[in-house]
Amino acid sequence: MKGIIFVLDGMGDRPVKELGDKTPLESAKTPNLDKIVEENITGIMDTIRPGVRPGSDTAHLTLLGYDPYEVYTGRGPFEAAGVNVDVKPGDIAFRCNFSTADDNFIVTDRRAGRILNGTDKLAETINQMKIDDNVQIIFKESDAHRAVLVLRGNGLSDQITDADPKEEGHKPKAVKPLDDSEEAKYTADVVNQFVQKSYEMLKDHPVNLERIENGEPPANVVIPRGVGAVPSVKPFEEKYGLKGICVAETGLIKGIAKIAGMDTVDIPGATGGINTNLDNVKEYIMNAVNDENYDFMLVNVDGADEAGHDGDYIGKRDFLEKVDKLIFSELKDRDDIVLFVTADHSTPVSVKNHSGDPVPVIMKAPYVRVDDITEYGERAAAKGGLCRIRGSDVMYMIRDALNVIPKFGA
Amino acid sequence: MKGIIFVLDGMGDRPVKELGDKTPLESAKTPNLDKIVEENITGIMDTIRPGVRPGSDTAHLTLLGYDPYEVYTGRGPFEAAGVNVDVKPGDIAFRCNFSTADDNFIVTDRRAGRILNGTDKLAETINQMKIDDNVQIIFKESDAHRAVLVLRGNGLSDQITDADPKEEGHKPKAVKPLDDSEEAKYTADVVNQFVQKSYEMLKDHPVNLERIENGEPPANVVIPRGVGAVPSVKPFEEKYGLKGICVAETGLIKGIAKIAGMDTVDIPGATGGINTNLDNVKEYIMNAVNDENYDFMLVNVDGADEAGHDGDYIGKRDFLEKVDKLIFSELKDRDDIVLFVTADHSTPVSVKNHSGDPVPVIMKAPYVRVDDITEYGERAAAKGGLCRIRGSDVMYMIRDALNVIPKFGA
Repeated sequence: MKGIIFVLDGMGDRPVKELGDKTPLESAKTPNLDKIVEENITGIMDTIRPGVRPGSDTAHLTLLGYDPYEVYTGRGPFEAAGVNVDVKPGDIAFRCNFSTADDNFIVTDRRAGRILNGTDKLAETINQMKIDDNVQIIFKESDAHRAVLVLRGNGLSDQITDADPKEEGHKPKAVKPLDDSEEAKYTADVVNQFVQKSYEMLKDHPVNLERIENGEPPANVVIPRGVGAVPSVKPFEEKYGLKGICVAETGLIKGIAKIAGMDTVDIPGATGGINTNLDNVKEYIMNAVNDENYDFMLVNVDGADEAGHDGDYIGKRDFLEKVDKLIFSELKDRDDIVLFVTADHSTPVSVKNHSGDPVPVIMKAPYVRVDDITEYGERAAAKGGLCRIRGSDVMYMIRDALNVIPKFGA
Repeated sequence: MKGIIFVLDGMGDRPVKELGDKTPLESAKTPNLDKIVEENITGIMDTIRPGVRPGSDTAHLTLLGYDPYEVYTGRGPFEAAGVNVDVKPGDIAFRCNFSTADDNFIVTDRRAGRILNGTDKLAETINQMKIDDNVQIIFKESDAHRAVLVLRGNGLSDQITDADPKEEGHKPKAVKPLDDSEEAKYTADVVNQFVQKSYEMLKDHPVNLERIENGEPPANVVIPRGVGAVPSVKPFEEKYGLKGICVAETGLIKGIAKIAGMDTVDIPGATGGINTNLDNVKEYIMNAVNDENYDFMLVNVDGADEAGHDGDYIGKRDFLEKVDKLIFSELKDRDDIVLFVTADHSTPVSVKNHSGDPVPVIMKAPYVRVDDITEYGERAAAKGGLCRIRGSDVMYMIRDALNVIPKFGA
């Protein structure tokens, strides 16, 4: 038996007038998910607690049984791990953008024209940066204009502000300490030097000279944000005795899995959007389901969240239908899995962002108290036999269904 | 008005194919419980938290409002209190078996032929054991081959392993410290000496010489397990201002009540199984219900749990029917009680052990928001007006219904 948490990222929603006051999920035709519902048990879940708007990162940490209030200080560490930087507890990590600055150091394009090529060469240069003998600079390009920065050394702190000016027309923000510690002052100073030096090292870089020649905005400054300290996390396998694999599209979720010591895969053509290559996503999911080396899988399919952020209720509905047809058709009759279908949070198309609404969950296992709910939807699930649970309950419930959780007491 | 927590131990279950996909409780004819349901309010309860498989001990501690993660280190202290050893906070206590060892100290019968007579004389001898001046040995026989050991003294620890070899054909296990403390090393050494000396003191004991003559296995070694430190627990009456009594069949539950400072009773013929003397159980329950000295009662009837452990779905169903007919017929129309009917945990016949499934609860009180549920069952209760609560909520809810809980705030 294998345990699976299957996250349809951002799936939860609110009624949409244009969909006849149904949510995208309620409006979607999902015969395979409906069959799983009919034969199993449903409920709603507050991933963190009612009304809390979880990020995908804090939500997934919670679902895996880690307390985000303990281990989460920012997105940087997970993004860095997600692009295979070998982060270590205590490292200070950031997401970065390659941006374009003019001669007055004013940011004119936060995404450097969404640069696609050459960032590896720019990263090579940045990796040669030296600030002082104490701190090591580890830098790696990610997709398009994105990159990650890791500071490794003694006396560093994550208690600092962002450098991101948020909109064009401003200089990168001077990073400031958020507390009175020497560590925060020192780290802010290091990051400010990093931003300044990135400009000096990149402005005449061959990649940028070529871009300028082609009329493209140069990627001549690196702007860090999303600072966080890499947490010390008990590896998933050590915590639960279950060997885990994560099948996810985005670096953020892969990074969480990596920091938890789980294996990950890279799915060709997976974009994290509604245009993702779902055939490949399905193939990687089913390979992992069938791989006997693993006792546990975390799956994340991201398109519904993107559609939610875009306010695209049709896209969200249709994407959920596609996932149902392609993937849950394969899972619905498997009797060798304990399958927990959920979202990490709601992303209502009317909000275009995450909300604190609970998400609908299904628990499929060989022996559950089958309830009388017959379709998968936010309001149907609220009447299910699980009633209302929390994200931190899920790993307990899955281990109980797998019969691998130790008894507490006698 | 008297508050009652009525625990049908291990009652919760999962659907059983042979019962038409009903649980034993759903399948049982329980007209009296159904009537209580119809006139009151129901719900489901996670005694500790969803997915956690509680022991009966941790579950009952939780129901009484004690945090098992604080006060529970093992079963020994409650078993010892349950046979009237006057345990004190800090004592290290164990459950023990009288076992049979051969001349090479190999355990040939872990239960010494389920010895019925003479263990009091064996215990007298063991109580004369002297290990050193620091530690006092307190030993008492319990039912059949069972006994308890309490170590009292300075510098003792519960961080040690068991001596129980778990199966015949092995020597008693050498007890080892679980941490690096001097206390754990010392206590492990004391227990190892205890096991060795028990053999020396018992092997030629007259009770055993007689057993050997009769062709019965001698009870010539004592093997401790289930170590725990006796917790310091605020007495129930001091905690709540309610004088409490416990009517339970097993030493474990009685021991929990005793450590909480509650009165207990010994019910003749109560076995804790489905063959228990339910007439006597009923008599002791009703005597306590009618005893005006008590404001609160904890009741535990154990048969459904035993049937669950045995995988005996017919026995479980029939036992619940008997309890309904004999006992809830008496309670259903009492208007001088706040009655909370529950299980401590599920013991599904398909699992033959405790599971993390929630348990169905009823709260009967003079004024409740009567819901539309009309029968007592796991899935019916999941639709009840209480929704899903936790075991640690129960003493708050009962005190509120009794109108004896102070307002928090103004």
